[in-house]
Amino acid sequence: MKNKTTYFAFLFRPLLLLIVFTTLTEKASAQAPTTGADAAFIRKIYSQALTDGRCYPWLSDLCLGVGHRLSGSPAAEKAVRWTHSVLDTLGLDSVWLQPVQVPHWVRGGAEEVKVTGSKKYGSFALHALALGGSVATGPKGISAEVVEVKSWDELERLNERGIRGKIVFYNRPMDPSKIRTFEAYGGAVDQRSKGASQAAKYGAIGVLVRSMGLRLDDFPHTGAMHYDSNYTLIPAVAISTNDAEKLSALLRAEGSATVSMKLNCQTLPDAPSHNVIGEIRGTEFPDRVILVGGHLDSWDVGHGAHDDGAGCTQSMDVLRCLQRLGYRPRHTIRCVLFMNEENGLRGGRQYAKEAERKGEFHLCAIESDAGGFTPRGFSFEGEESVIGPFFEKVSAFQDVLAPYGLQLTRGGSGADISPLRNQKGLLSGYSPDSQRYFDYHHTAADVFDAVNKRELELGAASMAALVYLLDTYGL
Amino acid sequence: MKNKTTYFAFLFRPLLLLIVFTTLTEKASAQAPTTGADAAFIRKIYSQALTDGRCYPWLSDLCLGVGHRLSGSPAAEKAVRWTHSVLDTLGLDSVWLQPVQVPHWVRGGAEEVKVTGSKKYGSFALHALALGGSVATGPKGISAEVVEVKSWDELERLNERGIRGKIVFYNRPMDPSKIRTFEAYGGAVDQRSKGASQAAKYGAIGVLVRSMGLRLDDFPHTGAMHYDSNYTLIPAVAISTNDAEKLSALLRAEGSATVSMKLNCQTLPDAPSHNVIGEIRGTEFPDRVILVGGHLDSWDVGHGAHDDGAGCTQSMDVLRCLQRLGYRPRHTIRCVLFMNEENGLRGGRQYAKEAERKGEFHLCAIESDAGGFTPRGFSFEGEESVIGPFFEKVSAFQDVLAPYGLQLTRGGSGADISPLRNQKGLLSGYSPDSQRYFDYHHTAADVFDAVNKRELELGAASMAALVYLLDTYGL
Repeated sequence: MKNKTTYFAFLFRPLLLLIVFTTLTEKASAQAPTTGADAAFIRKIYSQALTDGRCYPWLSDLCLGVGHRLSGSPAAEKAVRWTHSVLDTLGLDSVWLQPVQVPHWVRGGAEEVKVTGSKKYGSFALHALALGGSVATGPKGISAEVVEVKSWDELERLNERGIRGKIVFYNRPMDPSKIRTFEAYGGAVDQRSKGASQAAKYGAIGVLVRSMGLRLDDFPHTGAMHYDSNYTLIPAVAISTNDAEKLSALLRAEGSATVSMKLNCQTLPDAPSHNVIGEIRGTEFPDRVILVGGHLDSWDVGHGAHDDGAGCTQSMDVLRCLQRLGYRPRHTIRCVLFMNEENGLRGGRQYAKEAERKGEFHLCAIESDAGGFTPRGFSFEGEESVIGPFFEKVSAFQDVLAPYGLQLTRGGSGADISPLRNQKGLLSGYSPDSQRYFDYHHTAADVFDAVNKRELELGAASMAALVYLLDTYGL
Repeated sequence: MKNKTTYFAFLFRPLLLLIVFTTLTEKASAQAPTTGADAAFIRKIYSQALTDGRCYPWLSDLCLGVGHRLSGSPAAEKAVRWTHSVLDTLGLDSVWLQPVQVPHWVRGGAEEVKVTGSKKYGSFALHALALGGSVATGPKGISAEVVEVKSWDELERLNERGIRGKIVFYNRPMDPSKIRTFEAYGGAVDQRSKGASQAAKYGAIGVLVRSMGLRLDDFPHTGAMHYDSNYTLIPAVAISTNDAEKLSALLRAEGSATVSMKLNCQTLPDAPSHNVIGEIRGTEFPDRVILVGGHLDSWDVGHGAHDDGAGCTQSMDVLRCLQRLGYRPRHTIRCVLFMNEENGLRGGRQYAKEAERKGEFHLCAIESDAGGFTPRGFSFEGEESVIGPFFEKVSAFQDVLAPYGLQLTRGGSGADISPLRNQKGLLSGYSPDSQRYFDYHHTAADVFDAVNKRELELGAASMAALVYLLDTYGL
C-alpha cells in the first residue's frame, strides 16, 4: 500500500460489494462479472510480457549458466542460489529459501547398453539412459537374453518360465492417435515406473523400457521408477524409440537377442536443498495465497528447459510483470520454485506442510509444468463444493481470456501443488499446447534452443492474467 | 454463370429456403445437427492421419528431394512432376496438370551488402537477401549514405532534400505485442512491398528493409515487392533483424553510415508451369467442389517447408485419408497445389478462370498457407448472404471439432483461393498456431526439420474433418 490512489480504489471495492451483497468476505465479489477494465489490464499484462518480459533471458541463464540440475546435485544448489538472487532484485515483499531434504541419486559414468551377437548386425550399442532411481549392474555389468512384452498380461503369461534370468524389454508405444499427448504418456508410463519390479517378480535380471516419446528418434528419455521392496531390485534403462523399433525387428527376424548392460548409478544419502519462494503480500487477505510455480530440479540431461525451467521462469515473471505494472494484489501472490518434483516430490510436500503449519489458505495454486509452448488454457481441479461454483461463473473469465487463445476446463493440475489438495482451494495446471512436449521430455534434447521466446512469454502473461482475475474476483 | 446446374442452384436458392426444407437438394441436410456418427468418423480421420499419415514423409521428399522451388525454376517443375506422380498413386478419380505462365525472377549470385567506413566497426557484411522482383545494382554495385525511417510520415518529411542519392533503411519492427503474428506482419510488410518505389519517388538509389520477423536473429527474410512504374526501379534488399538493430545503433552512435550493395537478380521472360490437381468426384454434386490446397512454389531459400510445403502435403493427405477410409463424397473433393503464390498469384488466377469456364461452383475452398503448426481452427470469409447463414448453424460443427482444439471464426482465407471470391461460395483459411511462423517465413531457416510431424498431421486431419462436415451438411 504505497500508493494512495490504488489504496482508495481497493478500499472502496469491498465497500460497494458490501452494499450489494451485505457481506464483507471475499466471497461477495465472486459473482462480479469481468469488466472492460479487466480486459484493459489483461491487455497490459500481455504487452508487458511480450515487449519487456524477462522469462526468456532468465531461462537462458538457467539453462546455459546452470544447466541440468537433479535434486541433490551441485547444479541444483546453484539454481537455488541463482533464482533466489534474481527474485531478490524484483522488489517483492519477501523472498526466502525453504529447507527440504531431497533424495540424491547419481547416474555415475555413462551407461553402456548393447545388443551382442546379432546374426545381421553383430554387436551394436543402444542409445540408453538409466531410469532415475535404478540400481547399478555392478562393475561387470549383466548380459542376458531379451524378452519383449507390450502388456502386463503378456508378462504374466510368460511368467517365471519365460522370464527368469532374462532381461524384459517393455515396448508398448505411446498411442499417437491420442490428441492430448499427456494421455498417451499416461497410457505407457506404467512400464517405466513399475516395470522393473513387475519383471523382477518373475525372476528377470534387468529391464529395458521403450522411451516415453511419440517421435522416432535416437534420444533416450529417462524418468522416475519405483521399486517394490518385495522383489529384487534390478537395473532399468530407457532406450530410444528408434532402438526399440530396431530391437523389436531384430527379435522378429532372428528369434532371439542378447543384451548386455552396465549401469553405474548410485543412491546417496538424502541431501539438503530448498524451495525458492518470493511473494507480493496481499493488501486485504495476506493469509490467502494465490500461488504460481514450477519445479526447479530437472533430470540430469539436457538443460531442463521445457521441464521445467520454463515453468520456473514464467512463475518468476508473473510476479515481476504485476509488480512492474504497479499492481497491488488483494491476496498474497506467491511464486514457488519447488525442489525435487522429478524423483521425490519432497519440495511440494514440505511446502504444503509449512503452509498448514502457518495457517495459510491457498485460494488457488497454479503450476506450469507442461513445457514452454503456446498457451491453450488452464485446467482446474478441487472439491466439487469449490470447483462447482467456480465453473458456474467461469464464463466471464473465459470471455476475457478467449482473445488470448485460452480455455478454462476441468482437469489435472500439477504434481508439486497436489499436496495442497486438503486445503480445499482450487488447483490449476497451465496447459500449453502438448504436441511437442514428449519430443523433449527427460532427454538431452530439452535445451534452451528448443524453447520459443514468444511461446514462453505468452505463457507467463496467461498465468499473470489468471492470477489477476482470481485476485480480483476471488473464488 | 455458364453452367446450367450451377445457374439453377443459384436461381432457386431463395425459393428453396422459402419452401422450408421440404426438398431433396443438399440444402435440406444443411440444417441437420452433427451426429454421433460424425464424431466417430472424425475420430477415424484423426487416427488415420496420426498413425498412418503421409504428409510428413511427403514433406520430407519435397524438402530434401526437391528443395526450394521459386516459380519458373527447374526445381518448381520438379515439384510439379513429383507431386503429380504422388497424387497419381492414390487411386483418385482424376489427377491433372493445369498449365499457367509464371513470372521468372532469379536471384543470380549471392548478394553482397555491407556497411563501410564505420568508426567503431570499420566495414562489415550485413545478412541480406534481395527482395523478390528487385532489379540488380549493376556489376559495380551502389554505395551511398543510409537514412533510417520508421514511418511513411518520416519519409515524407525527409523528402527529396533528405533522400536524394541515398539508400533508405526501413526499420519499423513488427509489433511483438500483437497476439496473432499475422497482424504484426500486416503492420510492417508495407515497407517491403512498396518501400522501394516510395523511396525512389524522393530520389533514393536503393532500399534496405528490416526483415519481417519477430525474433532477433541473423536470417534475412525475402518476399515480394512491387514497383510503381512512375518511379525509377531501385534495388531492394531485406537485412536480418539483428543487422537492422546494429545498423540503427550505429546510426545513433556515429551520426551517419554508408552502405554498399551489389545485387545480381534478373527478371527473365515468363515461364511455363502448372497447378497440380487431383480430385475425388462427388456422387451427388460432381460440379460442386470442396477445394483443399496450398501453394507449391516457394521462395528460393531454405526448403519452403512451412511456406508452403506443409499446406501442399496436408492437402494431398486430406484426399488420401478420406480415400483410405473408403469415404465417397457427395461433392467433388479436390486438392489443388497452386503455382506462383509468392510472386504473382498466376496459378490462383488461372485456376479461378478455368473453374468459371467449366462452370464449377466452389462450395468452399480451404487453403493451408500459414505453416505446419498445431491446429487452432479455421477462419471463413464470403458474402454476408453465404457466411451469415453458415455461422448461424456453425455451432454444431464447432461442437464436434472442439475436442481437436479447433475454433471456427470469421476472418481471412488464403491468397490462392481469393480469385474464387466472385463464385460466392465460402473461402476458408486453415489457422494453425501463428507464434513461430515468422521465425521461418521466407528464410533459409524454413527447412524440413523445423516442421513437427504431429503438428503437420493434425493439420491434415483438421482439414479432412472440415471437408467431411461441409460435404455432409452442405452450405
